[in-house]
Amino acid sequence: MLPQIFLNKQQTLYKKMAITKSIIKKLKEIVGKENFSCFKEDLVCYSFDSNNSSPPPDIVLFPSSKEEIANIVKLANENKISVTVRGSGSGTTGGALPIMGGIVISMSNFNKIIEIDKKNFIGIVQTGVITGDFKKAVEKEGLFYPPDPSSSDFSTIGGNVAECAGGLNAVKYGVTKDYVLGLTAVLPTGEIIKTGGKTKKNVVGYDLTKLITGSEGTLAIITEITLKLIPKRECSKTSIIFCNSIESAIDSAIKIIHLNPKAIEFMDKASIECVKNYTGDDFFINEQAEAVLIIEIDGIKESVIEKYKKLKTICDNQNIKLKIAETETEKQNIWKNRKSLSPALFKYNKDKINEDIVLPISKIPEIVRKIEKLKDETNLTMISFGHAGDGNIHFNIMLDKDNPDDKKKALYVINEVFNYTISLGGSISGEHGIGTTKKEHIKKEIDDVTLSIMKKIKKTFDPNGILNPYKIFP
Amino acid sequence: MLPQIFLNKQQTLYKKMAITKSIIKKLKEIVGKENFSCFKEDLVCYSFDSNNSSPPPDIVLFPSSKEEIANIVKLANENKISVTVRGSGSGTTGGALPIMGGIVISMSNFNKIIEIDKKNFIGIVQTGVITGDFKKAVEKEGLFYPPDPSSSDFSTIGGNVAECAGGLNAVKYGVTKDYVLGLTAVLPTGEIIKTGGKTKKNVVGYDLTKLITGSEGTLAIITEITLKLIPKRECSKTSIIFCNSIESAIDSAIKIIHLNPKAIEFMDKASIECVKNYTGDDFFINEQAEAVLIIEIDGIKESVIEKYKKLKTICDNQNIKLKIAETETEKQNIWKNRKSLSPALFKYNKDKINEDIVLPISKIPEIVRKIEKLKDETNLTMISFGHAGDGNIHFNIMLDKDNPDDKKKALYVINEVFNYTISLGGSISGEHGIGTTKKEHIKKEIDDVTLSIMKKIKKTFDPNGILNPYKIFP
Repeated sequence: MLPQIFLNKQQTLYKKMAITKSIIKKLKEIVGKENFSCFKEDLVCYSFDSNNSSPPPDIVLFPSSKEEIANIVKLANENKISVTVRGSGSGTTGGALPIMGGIVISMSNFNKIIEIDKKNFIGIVQTGVITGDFKKAVEKEGLFYPPDPSSSDFSTIGGNVAECAGGLNAVKYGVTKDYVLGLTAVLPTGEIIKTGGKTKKNVVGYDLTKLITGSEGTLAIITEITLKLIPKRECSKTSIIFCNSIESAIDSAIKIIHLNPKAIEFMDKASIECVKNYTGDDFFINEQAEAVLIIEIDGIKESVIEKYKKLKTICDNQNIKLKIAETETEKQNIWKNRKSLSPALFKYNKDKINEDIVLPISKIPEIVRKIEKLKDETNLTMISFGHAGDGNIHFNIMLDKDNPDDKKKALYVINEVFNYTISLGGSISGEHGIGTTKKEHIKKEIDDVTLSIMKKIKKTFDPNGILNPYKIFP
Repeated sequence: MLPQIFLNKQQTLYKKMAITKSIIKKLKEIVGKENFSCFKEDLVCYSFDSNNSSPPPDIVLFPSSKEEIANIVKLANENKISVTVRGSGSGTTGGALPIMGGIVISMSNFNKIIEIDKKNFIGIVQTGVITGDFKKAVEKEGLFYPPDPSSSDFSTIGGNVAECAGGLNAVKYGVTKDYVLGLTAVLPTGEIIKTGGKTKKNVVGYDLTKLITGSEGTLAIITEITLKLIPKRECSKTSIIFCNSIESAIDSAIKIIHLNPKAIEFMDKASIECVKNYTGDDFFINEQAEAVLIIEIDGIKESVIEKYKKLKTICDNQNIKLKIAETETEKQNIWKNRKSLSPALFKYNKDKINEDIVLPISKIPEIVRKIEKLKDETNLTMISFGHAGDGNIHFNIMLDKDNPDDKKKALYVINEVFNYTISLGGSISGEHGIGTTKKEHIKKEIDDVTLSIMKKIKKTFDPNGILNPYKIFP
């Protein structure tokens, strides 16, 4: 029996079965000795995501087939051992953390792109494939997989599907869910199911595909994903517009959405300063700018040219400066600067809380003003940026988590911002999910009856509650 | 107590409670006498959809608020009376039919467009609004609601959401589900829930919005729908291309998808002839044409012009004739001809079975050839047309349903076509749903474990099985 080293309050609530020698023997038989680990050095690596940590699991397994996963899960279900599935652990809300210990299943062996079907605009991938690798493979075939979370260079497609990742292109192209056509998945009771398929329309039975997508690894273990692809766009052009207020930036963004742009990214003044200090580039700097929008327009060449003329008119009419990236280097530089914002924030403090509220776009100025008031009130550094086109704002609180005063203030700010977001018709998470970090807030947004239906669905899939327990629900 | 006039095999299986005088009194109190009917003349009208019929209900109610619906449903649930919800009854698979009798709830009083929020690209509507009316109201505001089922002039948005309607524009713009952001709905147990909201991204809890969308009125009674809108397109241009084989048509369609067209409709030779005989127009007639594609490309003017140059090149390279609608009248004429196909079919026989299989697009020639073989084998008239861009083919069998031989042959054909569709990676329904007409075929596509999860979800929402019973599941 393995030692239960890390106990916390939640674990004491959980009737955790001991992982006996006999179970360990069986698990080794299922995956092979080389795909089993209970070394502390290994286990610790599986207790972090990009923002949070948990006790380590008791065991990490590296299965190679859905049948192996089915056998693991059957054993875990019979013995009520908790199972948590992990892609590359780049999530931000604790979805991949084994908060109850037990078994972590790493999907690292599920790393094959099974098929890119050019004729039918479909890709089939295993869960552990890195999203960016898949995107590149698809582009080589003249096709396009639009979802583009900032983590796409290292996050897995399985993690993207589990969390329903969003990203920069969602204003035009939607989110991960809009591209998931079918899934192969193992239920927490060990049966293997197939949902959806290779067709773009399908209304046969309930849509389990979209139910499992975004369920944060709590309903089923996805092993294979069928994705819709679209034709590759001929070209794209990127620009920055400099606005003298948040209000003017959002007014412009609403007009610009009519040009059907690929991205409309928003950065407040603090973000602009922060990036400048970090990269040394003064690309985003303009003396009057209180906020900038980064606009990318894609399509066939003639369309991009014409839309840029219209963009120029919009900007001229509002007396707003437009700076267009004229070369590929300038374009890459804009995005490099934008993407460096997240790491750049650490110059303000050693820890970061990154929330991903989402609002009807016209409400963005109100929430940004609210955040500014809270900044003055608490003296915490807070920075807002994000995907203006779909109203998804990342507001970041920089703090020292070891400082109880910082922590108390940050919790106060989050609570205030979430309440205000919901009062404006918004939501507490646009793309990161609830996981462990927001579950105490979910009732702000979802009423008890609706939440109770969700819990019953969880119970339907997972009667013993072994799969990623104590996530999402308070 | 009302007489139980129409009993069929299924009804004898159903433990149906009597609708007592006391229940009738309570129902009248809930909706008001003027919104209650049990006259046979009224009831009969609620026992038809566009293709099928059932016994009439015992009672039809016309509630005006979600609270009234909640009270009706609570009463029905306590007394185990079946409840079926009806929009305009234009469905094709029996979803709106009260096959167990009981109560029909007509959504005709839920006819308000509550809000079109131009700034936030969102529309909020009540369930009974006609889809075409909503589309027009949205266009007046410079916005676009893309889903466009052929029935949009008379089907309701609630029916579209319940069935997840598709239509002509799905190749570029997706289906109804892709636009549903949030729902207000009454559970079969009488509680009112709200799912999703006014934001384009939302990953808070399980996606009940997309689970209820397409659930064919079996999980909840939708009263209000929040829909995503997109910018209105500047212009669109329609054309016909004449292909000398099905294979050449589909090869062209695959190339044309790279131009991101709004629609790629397919008609086989029998369809072409049929339309010509019906409308008298020879618009689709070309001596070599074994199949035609109708292409519509939309966007800003410059983009449409440029894409038409590319379309011309594609056609020239394949030696295919392209005929472009040069005026608005010509364009309307093409669509009028295309949309007249469905009624035109009745020249072949008095009854029609219209199936809506969907396949990976490259497999369309194989299924069309299979249908041709079955045509030769059975001597039934069969016509195939549909949405080539997304692989969704409507194959129509013309028959006399009173002729047992016709009926037997038709059932044989359907069975063969469904089996072959699934063997090609397709699905038995792209946009019509399962309802009553295909439920005996659902197991061809969905395995027992997956089906059992779906049934458990039904039980979670509807423990007494009162809402639209005996639909979807065999």
